[in-house]
Amino acid sequence: MIDLDPLIVDSAVRAALSEDIGRGDVTTLSTIPEQQVCSARVLAKSPGVICGLALAAAAFRILDANVQFERRCDDGYVVDQTPCEIAIVTGNARAILTAERTALNFLQHLSGIATSARRFSQLVDGTSARVVDTRKTLPGMRALQKYAVRTGGAGNHRFGLDDGVLIKDNHIAAAGGIREAVSRARYGASHMLKVEVEAEDLAQVDEAIAAGADIVMLDNMSLEEMRVAVARIAGRAITEASGGIREDTIRAIAETGVDLVSVGTITHSVQAMDISLDFDQRK
Amino acid sequence: MIDLDPLIVDSAVRAALSEDIGRGDVTTLSTIPEQQVCSARVLAKSPGVICGLALAAAAFRILDANVQFERRCDDGYVVDQTPCEIAIVTGNARAILTAERTALNFLQHLSGIATSARRFSQLVDGTSARVVDTRKTLPGMRALQKYAVRTGGAGNHRFGLDDGVLIKDNHIAAAGGIREAVSRARYGASHMLKVEVEAEDLAQVDEAIAAGADIVMLDNMSLEEMRVAVARIAGRAITEASGGIREDTIRAIAETGVDLVSVGTITHSVQAMDISLDFDQRK
Amino acid sequence: MIDLDPLIVDSAVRAALSEDIGRGDVTTLSTIPEQQVCSARVLAKSPGVICGLALAAAAFRILDANVQFERRCDDGYVVDQTPCEIAIVTGNARAILTAERTALNFLQHLSGIATSARRFSQLVDGTSARVVDTRKTLPGMRALQKYAVRTGGAGNHRFGLDDGVLIKDNHIAAAGGIREAVSRARYGASHMLKVEVEAEDLAQVDEAIAAGADIVMLDNMSLEEMRVAVARIAGRAITEASGGIREDTIRAIAETGVDLVSVGTITHSVQAMDISLDFDQRK
Amino acid sequence: MIDLDPLIVDSAVRAALSEDIGRGDVTTLSTIPEQQVCSARVLAKSPGVICGLALAAAAFRILDANVQFERRCDDGYVVDQTPCEIAIVTGNARAILTAERTALNFLQHLSGIATSARRFSQLVDGTSARVVDTRKTLPGMRALQKYAVRTGGAGNHRFGLDDGVLIKDNHIAAAGGIREAVSRARYGASHMLKVEVEAEDLAQVDEAIAAGADIVMLDNMSLEEMRVAVARIAGRAITEASGGIREDTIRAIAETGVDLVSVGTITHSVQAMDISLDFDQRK
Amino acid sequence: MIDLDPLIVDSAVRAALSEDIGRGDVTTLSTIPEQQVCSARVLAKSPGVICGLALAAAAFRILDANVQFERRCDDGYVVDQTPCEIAIVTGNARAILTAERTALNFLQHLSGIATSARRFSQLVDGTSARVVDTRKTLPGMRALQKYAVRTGGAGNHRFGLDDGVLIKDNHIAAAGGIREAVSRARYGASHMLKVEVEAEDLAQVDEAIAAGADIVMLDNMSLEEMRVAVARIAGRAITEASGGIREDTIRAIAETGVDLVSVGTITHSVQAMDISLDFDQRK
Amino acid sequence: MIDLDPLIVDSAVRAALSEDIGRGDVTTLSTIPEQQVCSARVLAKSPGVICGLALAAAAFRILDANVQFERRCDDGYVVDQTPCEIAIVTGNARAILTAERTALNFLQHLSGIATSARRFSQLVDGTSARVVDTRKTLPGMRALQKYAVRTGGAGNHRFGLDDGVLIKDNHIAAAGGIREAVSRARYGASHMLKVEVEAEDLAQVDEAIAAGADIVMLDNMSLEEMRVAVARIAGRAITEASGGIREDTIRAIAETGVDLVSVGTITHSVQAMDISLDFDQRK
Repeated sequence: MIDLDPLIVDSAVRAALSEDIGRGDVTTLSTIPEQQVCSARVLAKSPGVICGLALAAAAFRILDANVQFERRCDDGYVVDQTPCEIAIVTGNARAILTAERTALNFLQHLSGIATSARRFSQLVDGTSARVVDTRKTLPGMRALQKYAVRTGGAGNHRFGLDDGVLIKDNHIAAAGGIREAVSRARYGASHMLKVEVEAEDLAQVDEAIAAGADIVMLDNMSLEEMRVAVARIAGRAITEASGGIREDTIRAIAETGVDLVSVGTITHSVQAMDISLDFDQRK
Repeated sequence: MIDLDPLIVDSAVRAALSEDIGRGDVTTLSTIPEQQVCSARVLAKSPGVICGLALAAAAFRILDANVQFERRCDDGYVVDQTPCEIAIVTGNARAILTAERTALNFLQHLSGIATSARRFSQLVDGTSARVVDTRKTLPGMRALQKYAVRTGGAGNHRFGLDDGVLIKDNHIAAAGGIREAVSRARYGASHMLKVEVEAEDLAQVDEAIAAGADIVMLDNMSLEEMRVAVARIAGRAITEASGGIREDTIRAIAETGVDLVSVGTITHSVQAMDISLDFDQRK
Repeated sequence: MIDLDPLIVDSAVRAALSEDIGRGDVTTLSTIPEQQVCSARVLAKSPGVICGLALAAAAFRILDANVQFERRCDDGYVVDQTPCEIAIVTGNARAILTAERTALNFLQHLSGIATSARRFSQLVDGTSARVVDTRKTLPGMRALQKYAVRTGGAGNHRFGLDDGVLIKDNHIAAAGGIREAVSRARYGASHMLKVEVEAEDLAQVDEAIAAGADIVMLDNMSLEEMRVAVARIAGRAITEASGGIREDTIRAIAETGVDLVSVGTITHSVQAMDISLDFDQRK
Repeated sequence: MIDLDPLIVDSAVRAALSEDIGRGDVTTLSTIPEQQVCSARVLAKSPGVICGLALAAAAFRILDANVQFERRCDDGYVVDQTPCEIAIVTGNARAILTAERTALNFLQHLSGIATSARRFSQLVDGTSARVVDTRKTLPGMRALQKYAVRTGGAGNHRFGLDDGVLIKDNHIAAAGGIREAVSRARYGASHMLKVEVEAEDLAQVDEAIAAGADIVMLDNMSLEEMRVAVARIAGRAITEASGGIREDTIRAIAETGVDLVSVGTITHSVQAMDISLDFDQRK
Repeated sequence: MIDLDPLIVDSAVRAALSEDIGRGDVTTLSTIPEQQVCSARVLAKSPGVICGLALAAAAFRILDANVQFERRCDDGYVVDQTPCEIAIVTGNARAILTAERTALNFLQHLSGIATSARRFSQLVDGTSARVVDTRKTLPGMRALQKYAVRTGGAGNHRFGLDDGVLIKDNHIAAAGGIREAVSRARYGASHMLKVEVEAEDLAQVDEAIAAGADIVMLDNMSLEEMRVAVARIAGRAITEASGGIREDTIRAIAETGVDLVSVGTITHSVQAMDISLDFDQRK
Repeated sequence: MIDLDPLIVDSAVRAALSEDIGRGDVTTLSTIPEQQVCSARVLAKSPGVICGLALAAAAFRILDANVQFERRCDDGYVVDQTPCEIAIVTGNARAILTAERTALNFLQHLSGIATSARRFSQLVDGTSARVVDTRKTLPGMRALQKYAVRTGGAGNHRFGLDDGVLIKDNHIAAAGGIREAVSRARYGASHMLKVEVEAEDLAQVDEAIAAGADIVMLDNMSLEEMRVAVARIAGRAITEASGGIREDTIRAIAETGVDLVSVGTITHSVQAMDISLDFDQRK
């Protein structure tokens, strides 16, 4: 799994803190003395894959650089037994209380994604297929959601419209055919980007291969069509199964021999993991 | 349901477009001529409550001010039979293809929230309780998620740490008791904000009422405790049930007589509604 | 008095420094060696209430993290005898000279507000009324100005259009009456926000009370009308006197028994406090 | 008087609207139907110089491009008799109600500055002196405040640390004398910028002239000292009187023969002009 | 050649206008009446490839939406004879004068790049090689510079560290060899991105091919080494020649049979094209 | 030479890092362990004037505050013999590899400008003329480019449209003559700004002097015209030669006796200096 660059963490967390704090945490500023300290444990209360510890740590530290965020595990840790202590936060009480919800919102959401990515990946275990995500993400959260997907052991499809060529039927029609569309994209886009063509039937699969596509998306095909497509392509391109794939259908799809199965639900329909902050008893 | 201010729509959509477009939609720019036009239908493919049409319209129009986005319904429309045509988009093909995913990501997510808000609200129908949301939202999406909650017929809890006082046990401990915490908050916060106190047992409920709280949160109480609390409070404060409330538990909770039931899952664990763009056949 | 969150201080000061520095402090960069140090005293030269020390400290430290800003008092300190030393700044001379005006502009303006807030509050001393501010603030300065109001001992009205419902005659007319307007606002706005109705005569006061308003604004009423209104409301709502209130009129208004007196002049017509930086003699 | 560039107007107004609207104007969105229209008059209720009409117009139009803002006068218009109608606003009621306070806050503050600038300028009428402003402005408002100063007929001192060289005693001491400081600044700064030297006594005046200063600031000098300084300088540099200048002292200072009198109070202690929005009677 | 997305144009031009205008175009605002109109021709005065017309048009229109920018050619037009009229600008004189330098700075720089890209591309004409750019661009200008490279007929290497994997010796050393580095990158990066390995000698070329690299960079190799490398690779990967390539060396390099020749100088050492605005005679 | 303010360095480098890193340095994050350290030397490989060390240092430190950037020289150092070690970077390998290109892009570009500024300045050595830059800069880079010009020993013309008055023929025509244009600008602009008039012939030179211009630009005049203009002006204004000045023409122009020679090519057509990062051998 690859990590997150620090600038991305910093700007995401600052924006989230500003959104929550607004003109000020009126409750905390009114009731908690400026120098008070406290300590709390970050507890996972449901099983899953932890993701987002760097963001949680940043949420506290941006408000007070002296807050200690002591990790008990790293991103990617699989929680089996609950409650499970995943970190200890100690320091200025105002900073900890004000940042609490922001830290948890990141942790719960990203851990939910990592957990789902892992579950889908386990379902294709033993096949040749790898689970990947899509661009069906939540506005503003793409880089973080895709990090969580990696944390759960699945792979990333392109991050945006600029880091991969994906030719769909509109592009094909406008260009006057798959061959011409692929050719235009090869010329216009960086050579560092692969070219994927969306095929809705076997005829389009053949055309995509003939046009030299690097990847062929088998869009909403039947299992049988997919098997035939994989056989015809015979390794000349990467194959990606796509279209409304769910937990109960993914295994059969993976067994058709495709290389990738892209699953939108991992990022567009996230079940938050249950994680909370438990404050130590105050004397 | 109250609407969204136009500045909020504009800035959210610009940020989302930039996230998706990055350095440019290489596929579309390579294959689609600059002046080409097209037309597509926005179709709901699963039942639910539509939300986010203003954001979808803005996504297309920010890229080309001449794109027509013709609504077939308004936010709050309940889709029963599918597929259901909810809008028609016509205009510059590059703009429509480049904005497609951004528009759908907003629509699918916000409609998912509105649908969930409506489902929870229906579950408490006939009781005195109203469903409200929480601050367990996705970073950067709070104003929009809370709009979707309203669209689904539920109500909004505070938007941030600045537009409502919510006194929890840490605040109480630091202030030296509920009475002192409420008093400090009344003095420090605007008189326009209500003061809510989180009570974990009936003793705290009594204290909160004695301290003059406007709202008492009954946190993770049993049904029986809630019934007693409601009776004791007797209208002197608004009562809010809170803590891990699910579809299968909300009815019984609402029947205890509480005024509000706050449900985190509406915003933190969203099931996207199935909405897509169907392009008209090209000759 | 409640404090300021650190993110608010940081972003306000960075923006102000950028506004003043522009493409560079050409005088200082040309004449002062990079490593030179100096020391200066922040002196109050007129009586008043000090406010803004955190912003002044941040102005120096953002330019050089090693500058020492040693406070001789805290925000809220009342200067009686002048000159009064309120802080000592020591460190890199470039940073101190470049940040000087920004630091002082914050201190002088916010201390001016705190001083005025205190003066108005003293004028109602012994009555049941509390002085509060308005939204008649200077663009971009609202959170800071309202902090200064608290520092001077007065209270805050709502911070924006989003953290309080204030129903005026246009809203009433559009909704078709006070009862309907209040009802719509209760449904549309968060339950954490109080609902205030602006009443121009006693009939509207009665309507507002009947509609369940939390707060009734007595707008530009005569002293006699206010007394009657307070009596009729009889504690069923908070009462706020509003409209062109000045130092020479506030006492009589407060003595009508109203709970709040809102005064726009505290933030819209600020007399800066005289505060300057005195550099130590250079050998 | 010179005008404001449109980008400056647009960004200032957008920021101010966002500050006031926050997550949404809950009152207006709850009570006013989306398509309702209204009309209102902008009325000046105290005498003074109008300033900020472009900002007021922008506040309404940014929220709804179809709002009509019909000016009855231009910036710089002198209101003698009140009430005086200065503009008519017609269009979408939500946009007008939501932008009202932002528009007025700009108008009241900037008109207050223009009024003060005009008053000070009239006080030196017939002398050779021109009134100019200082950098004692309110954070974030400098370009607008300086525009208001010009609107009132006074002149602008430098806008920031980057568009003028002003050598004070710290710079002199660090450079090792006025001659060396001026020489360094001439070399380091653009030749488009004049070099001003702050002189506290006549000896420093002589040194500044000998060093070739373009402008000499006579800082907190007595009237007699200023007269001597003006005579000695004899047109070889522009002379600027500075230091705590008030309405009751400016005339005598101007009569010493100085070219400029800089007055901080015009921008740091602004008395807002009384301007409000009067809505037309609703049937 | 692929185009630029409109959001990229808009934000680049707004930032450049703000940089140049600062607190206001004092000359134009002082001397040109608000309603004055004028007309000017954009003239190319040296041969080259025009690039940046959309940015120039935006510069004028952002300041005044009614300015007409009538193109006489499109981006990519090759100017042979000079002067050559490339556009006519007509409208508000303030807007045109204030935006003039910003518009020209974009046009001159981007046309300079396009011209250079074309010259390098012509030098390899008839070989199998295509010229591509590098990440040696000017901070803040990358997307625009790479657009200009395409306009001149050359291709784009990756836009940033995120849209292509380029494994250099440090990555290889840290991973423990080329095979392991490629394997980690394949797992960590999106499958849409190609993996390139930098090879400094033929042994590394062999390793890269064995590891399955999509592209092999032949870094600072001799012509002879490159010929051997191309032969050994035999189409199993794309080959890229890299390292200090100049106009006088590129032909021989291209003739070694490499697929790509990357040239930093096209973007890091740009000779601006001579383009100016000629105002029509004023009566 | 004057330095750069730290806020300018910080914001320029953060923006450049974000542009290059985008959604993450996929190569480095995939292959380099989080805690790995490395060391590298910044080497100048062509002669020239070093400029931009503060920006290079910031690029590394923003990604990891513990990276050591040890300077071997300061900005302005003249590299004669190559390779020349100009700094040593030591610390976290991810931070160093990810920031490498950003750091070098600043260094190479700014050193290229400083080198060119020095070369032009040497060409006028012994004359009375000083070389200055223009506003023909690269969008977003003006403050940095102008710093590099100073580093090379040349001077700065105005930074934008706001820090100097430059009256051209359009302004003259609109104002109705040079005298009126100068008069309007003196009134409208700050007295801290000098007023320059562009003269295309000797008649205009005379008019500019009569109007009291501080600076007269001799625009595209012949050498003989310039000599006559300098003689006529006789020190009553600064003289600036302008218009397509090149290395082979500047000496003769400087010898006409002008005070300033403005050269656009220094900033609009920059030859990058050859600077690279050499990593220490890894065991």
